[in-house]
Amino acid sequence: MEIRLVEDLLEANNRVAAKLRGLFSEKGILVLNLLSSPGAGKTTLIEKTLQRVQGSAKSAIVVGDVQTSRDKKRFEEAGLDAVQIITKGGCHLTATMVEKALASLDLDGLDILFIENVGNLVCPAGFELGEDMKVVLLSTTEGDDKPGKYPAAFFHAQAMVITKIDLLPWTNFDLGLAKRDARRIHPKLKIFEVSSLKGEGMEDWVNWILQRAEQKRGNRKSVHGRAL
Amino acid sequence: MEIRLVEDLLEANNRVAAKLRGLFSEKGILVLNLLSSPGAGKTTLIEKTLQRVQGSAKSAIVVGDVQTSRDKKRFEEAGLDAVQIITKGGCHLTATMVEKALASLDLDGLDILFIENVGNLVCPAGFELGEDMKVVLLSTTEGDDKPGKYPAAFFHAQAMVITKIDLLPWTNFDLGLAKRDARRIHPKLKIFEVSSLKGEGMEDWVNWILQRAEQKRGNRKSVHGRAL
Repeated sequence: MEIRLVEDLLEANNRVAAKLRGLFSEKGILVLNLLSSPGAGKTTLIEKTLQRVQGSAKSAIVVGDVQTSRDKKRFEEAGLDAVQIITKGGCHLTATMVEKALASLDLDGLDILFIENVGNLVCPAGFELGEDMKVVLLSTTEGDDKPGKYPAAFFHAQAMVITKIDLLPWTNFDLGLAKRDARRIHPKLKIFEVSSLKGEGMEDWVNWILQRAEQKRGNRKSVHGRAL
Repeated sequence: MEIRLVEDLLEANNRVAAKLRGLFSEKGILVLNLLSSPGAGKTTLIEKTLQRVQGSAKSAIVVGDVQTSRDKKRFEEAGLDAVQIITKGGCHLTATMVEKALASLDLDGLDILFIENVGNLVCPAGFELGEDMKVVLLSTTEGDDKPGKYPAAFFHAQAMVITKIDLLPWTNFDLGLAKRDARRIHPKLKIFEVSSLKGEGMEDWVNWILQRAEQKRGNRKSVHGRAL
């Protein structure tokens, strides 16, 4: 009975996710769904990324938390548009939660939407939100053994961002080991190494996103072009 | 329907947990259920704690992971008895999983049992495993805002261990803020500050556990005394 219910929930979620995917394609918005443990640095990475793309792209954030609107407040203090979802105990976002949150955003002219999922390496991996890709964060202070121990997030993500690279000298994190472990699960995983706070590695990551956003906008134009 | 099912699952879990609690009382075993984000340092804390209690108390570990037996291997390399539970995607341990794992352990003469839950600040908080107490870990590299954002774990725990205290100088973690945030949720929370690797703060923590184990053993004796 439990399995059946889980399947029903996933199917219902996928229906809404498909609708969102259509909406994002129509509007030409690149959507990234960020997954990680609590405290791996999702909020800071988004903050610093979107400050760098200001001028080149219009962006917004949907941020999920079990409780509190702290992250929304942080984004707003950084001059960024954010909508907060509070899951009240739920361990992941659902497409329906995202759909409701989008009602508070002006999607026209938007280029990039970051969805910051609940801090959790297990549950969010199985729930599509209509995104172009999942991005999984792994901080150097968490330990290099996490991909193998929590494989689903690394399997479903298209990119992994190794965060807090500035703390590497103070930890026993083995970069090579972490990357091998992740690529064993997902051989084509794109990997970035960054320090959001110190700026190291941010340029590559930001350029990659801007390129993907450009492609997404281009696809929309050609879709519209054919439609006319 | 979803809520009803969750209630059924929790009730079924609680029945098994009650049975385990009885078993642990009868045997006089202190049981600690450790919760935290992935990579907050549960495995290292248990390893270093149990190496310090060797001689004073007999101990064992039940360790839960989504995938891999890496932690069991680590414990065994450190000369400790461990049983691995692999949840195959499940985001928390259940009392039934623990009950099955206990079949591989000799409980007679055991003083302390650590249960290392799946790395997850959300799901494990709601599932009793027959433990004397939950202990929540918060690492300095995760950020001081986590208690408010993931309140359930801090609400249900009797003690919080702030780990990786040696990395404090390299982070912007505010110890006072983290403690206030946790005590707002749980005013009587016992708080320890440790570096498992460097040893700072370990003595207080280990002494506290040994004291609790002594009490638990004493209670068993008095129970047996009355029964005779």
